[in-house]
Amino acid sequence: MSVAIVGAGPGDPGLITVRALELVRRCEILVYDRLVSPLLVAEAQHAALIARDGLSQEAVNELLVRHGRRGRAVVRLKGGDPFMFGRGGEEVDALAEAGLPCEVVPGVSTLTAIPGLAGIPLTSRGEAAQLTVVTGTSADGGDLDYAQLAETPGTLVVFMGLGKLGRIAAGLIEAGRDPAEPAAVLSRLSWPGAEIRTGTLETIADAARGLSSPAVAVIGAVAARATAAEPLFA
Amino acid sequence: MSVAIVGAGPGDPGLITVRALELVRRCEILVYDRLVSPLLVAEAQHAALIARDGLSQEAVNELLVRHGRRGRAVVRLKGGDPFMFGRGGEEVDALAEAGLPCEVVPGVSTLTAIPGLAGIPLTSRGEAAQLTVVTGTSADGGDLDYAQLAETPGTLVVFMGLGKLGRIAAGLIEAGRDPAEPAAVLSRLSWPGAEIRTGTLETIADAARGLSSPAVAVIGAVAARATAAEPLFA
Repeated sequence: MSVAIVGAGPGDPGLITVRALELVRRCEILVYDRLVSPLLVAEAQHAALIARDGLSQEAVNELLVRHGRRGRAVVRLKGGDPFMFGRGGEEVDALAEAGLPCEVVPGVSTLTAIPGLAGIPLTSRGEAAQLTVVTGTSADGGDLDYAQLAETPGTLVVFMGLGKLGRIAAGLIEAGRDPAEPAAVLSRLSWPGAEIRTGTLETIADAARGLSSPAVAVIGAVAARATAAEPLFA
Repeated sequence: MSVAIVGAGPGDPGLITVRALELVRRCEILVYDRLVSPLLVAEAQHAALIARDGLSQEAVNELLVRHGRRGRAVVRLKGGDPFMFGRGGEEVDALAEAGLPCEVVPGVSTLTAIPGLAGIPLTSRGEAAQLTVVTGTSADGGDLDYAQLAETPGTLVVFMGLGKLGRIAAGLIEAGRDPAEPAAVLSRLSWPGAEIRTGTLETIADAARGLSSPAVAVIGAVAARATAAEPLFA
């Protein structure tokens, strides 16, 4: 298998998988995301290093196909899990269209890891049997379906929505979601400068002011468990 | 940190994290789930091995607290991620109540990994901007809120619901969800005997007959991408 689409995990180099690290160490071409630890990039000692930052998705797809056709050992190293809001599917499709098989190595997703590191179980018996995940904007770049989301039970996670958190919170409250519902924003967990801010749906956007990406917002009863203390693993 | 709550990943031993494997290798007490590869259990060469199977959650909590108080290096190794439908939160709470700090090591969750291995991106630009995850039964052991789930856009994932898939599919259709919507059941991916069955919301329960746990059902447009071929990584 010459091309591998590989998850690097949420940040801390210890959270890459054993299989992923093995592939990184022996690859010839490493195409890596901005949100991948420099310590992991440094593990690819025999590889030409290509930063994905600044390239279009089409350019990345072409790179993978071109080097894959030459039979080079290519690793496409992506932050978190390659398929969770990661566009890994588009890269697999491009390789398949070119007749190139690829190996997919799942990673620890930011979705599950970051709340866990903050002491928040996204699902919890008796508290949250359902989990809903949305991005800051819906697929067509428009607004989220607030009326539907206001009715959704369990835990709501907002990915990549730091700049839009105020609008999202206001939309949910306007559509009938309880303003007093617990909420937490988890910024840069498993990275240097990790920070956790808590509040309610009504106050969370103000509380989160000044935080940096990558950040995950959690809305729901389980958000009240966020430990404002140091992350357990950093 | 004497007690660690650690994710083992979805099955294949290569999908454990580097940090998790390091802790397993040097622990003195290993409390492990049924859904953890024997190859990973064998890595704990210096440890007393305790199978979790057959123990109540309370008994597990007590074990962790008792050995943690003695200052032993304890690893609680859980299938997938410790916090995704994993009751890791209850174990962290029990340790905190006993005044024992613990390290949490997130794992590759079955939720994200298994669909990825089957070629299904749970989220996909333009196809599925929202992801909803439910278990076979709701928190109180009752039925799911079918009316609400029938209206939910994007991808729906059913965890641990193999035995109830027929009832869940019927409930969703009765509540107005499209019977022709693509659906896939992914059984034992990253384990020996992996199998993928596909169909529609109407046919999937029949198609899934005879499959073994652990299994994950995916309902939504992205389910049509499931590759009936061998899993990419097994």
